[in-house]
Amino acid sequence: MTSSDPRRPSAAEEARTIAAATNTGTLATLTTTGDPWASFVTYGLLEGAPVLCLSRLAEHGRNLEHDPRASLAIVAPRTDPDPLASGRITLAGTVEPPSGDDRTAAREAHLAAVPAAEYYIDYSDFSLWMLRVQRVRWVGGYGRMDSATGDDYAAALPDPIQPHAAAAIEHLNADHAEALAAMARALGGFPDAEAASCTGADRYGLDLKVTARGGIAYTRVGFAEPLDGIEELRAATVALVQRARA
Amino acid sequence: MTSSDPRRPSAAEEARTIAAATNTGTLATLTTTGDPWASFVTYGLLEGAPVLCLSRLAEHGRNLEHDPRASLAIVAPRTDPDPLASGRITLAGTVEPPSGDDRTAAREAHLAAVPAAEYYIDYSDFSLWMLRVQRVRWVGGYGRMDSATGDDYAAALPDPIQPHAAAAIEHLNADHAEALAAMARALGGFPDAEAASCTGADRYGLDLKVTARGGIAYTRVGFAEPLDGIEELRAATVALVQRARA
Repeated sequence: MTSSDPRRPSAAEEARTIAAATNTGTLATLTTTGDPWASFVTYGLLEGAPVLCLSRLAEHGRNLEHDPRASLAIVAPRTDPDPLASGRITLAGTVEPPSGDDRTAAREAHLAAVPAAEYYIDYSDFSLWMLRVQRVRWVGGYGRMDSATGDDYAAALPDPIQPHAAAAIEHLNADHAEALAAMARALGGFPDAEAASCTGADRYGLDLKVTARGGIAYTRVGFAEPLDGIEELRAATVALVQRARA
Repeated sequence: MTSSDPRRPSAAEEARTIAAATNTGTLATLTTTGDPWASFVTYGLLEGAPVLCLSRLAEHGRNLEHDPRASLAIVAPRTDPDPLASGRITLAGTVEPPSGDDRTAAREAHLAAVPAAEYYIDYSDFSLWMLRVQRVRWVGGYGRMDSATGDDYAAALPDPIQPHAAAAIEHLNADHAEALAAMARALGGFPDAEAASCTGADRYGLDLKVTARGGIAYTRVGFAEPLDGIEELRAATVALVQRARA
């Protein structure tokens, strides 16, 4: 890494962000003979815990009634033509039917994420299941991966910037290339940077791809404070440019 | 169903078509403690058998070295905003390293589907695995589902029409609505059809959505012979119109 190594989102935060970015995943369950069974599912989230709505007539529903162990793989919406460059997670644990106050909240969480579920969620063969996440594996793309505990995952919050940053990143790269190069030189640890482009933005800072004399490199520049919403990104980026040029 | 109930693609054919439509899926394997583990993977196909290229440093690679049981869930590219309206399959069986002549063929099949694999396929921690499919579950959307054996799956061929039919279907609906209504009346079992639109096309025929006095209904009209390629779709459809108006 570089001289400036600002905070990055943790694996738990990356996982919460990916889980919040879509409503479909693939569930692994165990058949009655203990074989692994992969099946497409929809889900909502209740404080990060996936809420599934499955028919007992379907194989995965029968599997969970027999053995509550499960894991859910979720792939972030694709931005790169190479599928393995995308982020993805596995959330592993055991399922249980939501009980007490959780029941209504789980039903609402599923319906909020999967509106079409209103047509079958109350059918007698459908059950709600909450996945109690005990173990998390996050892969952010080539060479970026880490694990997290269920507690870390539960305590983390999805990134408020990442899902909404595409337009701002495009604008930075189109209209502010020199400002990005200045950031890379002054704050990113590449005093000889000739050019830089922004490849990502999150609550903690910007990812930069740097062209320097030594070739292509990747670095990061951090905001003074973590951001709480996309509406703060512009001012925080302007502040970075000012710091870089000070 | 209607008076005319032409052949439909079998579950095995639908599964082969979905498997051939993409290069990503989610693999279910067993951890060393027998828990189900879902993880994103890329694959190629060798005569329908998924060929995986996995690192032994990754959890799914370690899992398969310990227990060859696996299943692969594949989701057809989405055309409907409701995720559960899409087609998806589970291919279940056991993996084995390709041996003999299969080794080169499997390597080429994976690379053909996943060009970026050229950067890691020969790394010493990566292994090729062929999934020997023993059991297939196909879900075509709401209320359309069936199972198939591994032998049925191996013997079936992907549909040569379905993946390429979107433009033809759009053209039929935009410019030949009256011809579709005539098909529904004469060949689809709805003599009182007021209108019809095409919702799908495959080697065996066209799916029609019919508006008749009783409301909305779905039917099918079959080609005289199964088609071998998309270039035959136009003539086969013209022949259906002629039959309908004869």
